[in-house]
Amino acid sequence: MNILVTGGAGFLGQRLLRALCARNAVTDASGESRAIARIIALDAVASSANSVDDPRVRYVMGDLADPATLATIFADRVDSVFHLAAVVSGAAEADFDLGMRVNFDGTRRLLDACRLSGSVPRVVFASSVAVFGGDLPDIVTDSTTPTPQTSYGVQKLIGELLVSDTTRRGFIDGRAVRLPTIVVRPGKPNAAASSFASGIIREPLAGVETLCPVSADAALWLMSPATVIDNLLHAHETPASLWGAQRAISLPGLTATIAEMLDALRRVGGEAAVRRVRFVDDERIACIVRGWPARFDAARAATLGFQRDADIVSIVRRYAEDLVH
Amino acid sequence: MNILVTGGAGFLGQRLLRALCARNAVTDASGESRAIARIIALDAVASSANSVDDPRVRYVMGDLADPATLATIFADRVDSVFHLAAVVSGAAEADFDLGMRVNFDGTRRLLDACRLSGSVPRVVFASSVAVFGGDLPDIVTDSTTPTPQTSYGVQKLIGELLVSDTTRRGFIDGRAVRLPTIVVRPGKPNAAASSFASGIIREPLAGVETLCPVSADAALWLMSPATVIDNLLHAHETPASLWGAQRAISLPGLTATIAEMLDALRRVGGEAAVRRVRFVDDERIACIVRGWPARFDAARAATLGFQRDADIVSIVRRYAEDLVH
Repeated sequence: MNILVTGGAGFLGQRLLRALCARNAVTDASGESRAIARIIALDAVASSANSVDDPRVRYVMGDLADPATLATIFADRVDSVFHLAAVVSGAAEADFDLGMRVNFDGTRRLLDACRLSGSVPRVVFASSVAVFGGDLPDIVTDSTTPTPQTSYGVQKLIGELLVSDTTRRGFIDGRAVRLPTIVVRPGKPNAAASSFASGIIREPLAGVETLCPVSADAALWLMSPATVIDNLLHAHETPASLWGAQRAISLPGLTATIAEMLDALRRVGGEAAVRRVRFVDDERIACIVRGWPARFDAARAATLGFQRDADIVSIVRRYAEDLVH
Repeated sequence: MNILVTGGAGFLGQRLLRALCARNAVTDASGESRAIARIIALDAVASSANSVDDPRVRYVMGDLADPATLATIFADRVDSVFHLAAVVSGAAEADFDLGMRVNFDGTRRLLDACRLSGSVPRVVFASSVAVFGGDLPDIVTDSTTPTPQTSYGVQKLIGELLVSDTTRRGFIDGRAVRLPTIVVRPGKPNAAASSFASGIIREPLAGVETLCPVSADAALWLMSPATVIDNLLHAHETPASLWGAQRAISLPGLTATIAEMLDALRRVGGEAAVRRVRFVDDERIACIVRGWPARFDAARAATLGFQRDADIVSIVRRYAEDLVH
């Protein structure tokens, strides 16, 4: 099996590469487990010195929206694709053209390359909870209409529609999974509107002061990095027959308010950690976050066997433990 | 007011040009009625000898997906756009790339041109009932999630999303109206999967035999050409405040079965006309048509003041009368 991971040098990409290498094998279209021969990790930025190093992994630096890059990659057979590359929400809102080029053209060109290859690859597309927005019911269900209120959400929803249509036509075997907000992301704050959700755990545990731009009663729909990776792999491994015509799904996250997140921080890092979080309203961020749904009935995901985290305390504890090891 | 009509040489485009010229004026962004100075009728095909001839109308032959064509048009201020140009359902299904280029790239480039012009044009986008498909409730409502099962439907839905997002961002003032199947279209059969719906009225009234590819109990959601034009103009004239954040709407059509359509044909054209329709199943067409919803509760369209036809008999009678005059 030859696998392509877009955004392969990124945070999720690296964790996915590690998980794929550890598994050794994935399921092919006929349902048989087959050894992974090669993983191409495509990214717009270079891999770093401590990137996953495995003889099966080959890093390619290039632009997803550039047909030449994709032509080179698809010169060899590609059996499976994990499409993680994206411009994050805040950046897509700040620069409309950039978001359209990466999130929209990139996804389209990738699906074009899959189609033209003729090998009907299995494609797992990382969509987002941001496809929902505006006037929403208290609890979003599998039948709630996505009405995104950010350009990022619109671009992700368009990606889902292209995945669905190209699957219906037999060009790919696609599965789009809507990721909740991921906590705790390591590293530095980024341009995602949700960046603070990791920041208010990560920075205090590192002894650093940080700002929370939304109020304590704001609620988020969350998933830990480990559970996201498990679910991306599960999305790949489930047989096409289970998905049927409906190829997009909301993953089963966990609802937590900022207050509950800080309570978890207190239990893991003590009162001193919590005191490092200062509330300073940022209306631009707060407005975007308010538009995201925080409560779902993810019934279909449960039926398909996707996993959820146990609780916010165990997410924070797991992150703190990983820091030590 | 300078108006751009895409698909301006086509059937609906020509009727719209005639209606605009007859009105003399349309409403501008501030709600004031202003005289129409010029209408650019853009089309991929040349206008014919009997096209609408008015000093205010200028025909431009060109490709909507070609930035140079749009740059020329937008060199002068454009206040309003009626975006009718599209590759029809059957053609978009037969040729994936063609559908993507016209329905997807064309719409995107048009909205890009509107954005870059800085004049925040009012844009009326002709979407389609084909955004709905698959497992649908018996009656489609304003909260039913569009899950298109044709590439045409997907491309129209993506157009709606782009109209909605660019409106939210203040680049345009967009309104997307989902057209029912239009009967009776004059002229020749086309590549639309719904072409037969006009054919089974038009051809028998012209003394010509025709085939019906679906069964007599198949139901369609219909609107006459005159009512479509009234509704396109109404979509333009309604103030932005009435639309709010939700910029796509299902127009209020009329449900009729093939049997009811043939009964209307009998009342207008006699038994001889009905005998000119021969049922020959075409599974490809039938499959596409089965996927389209035939019954709607178009409550929001009624609230916004959109019109519906009285009944199928009056649609057929009106068509027959127009033939004579």
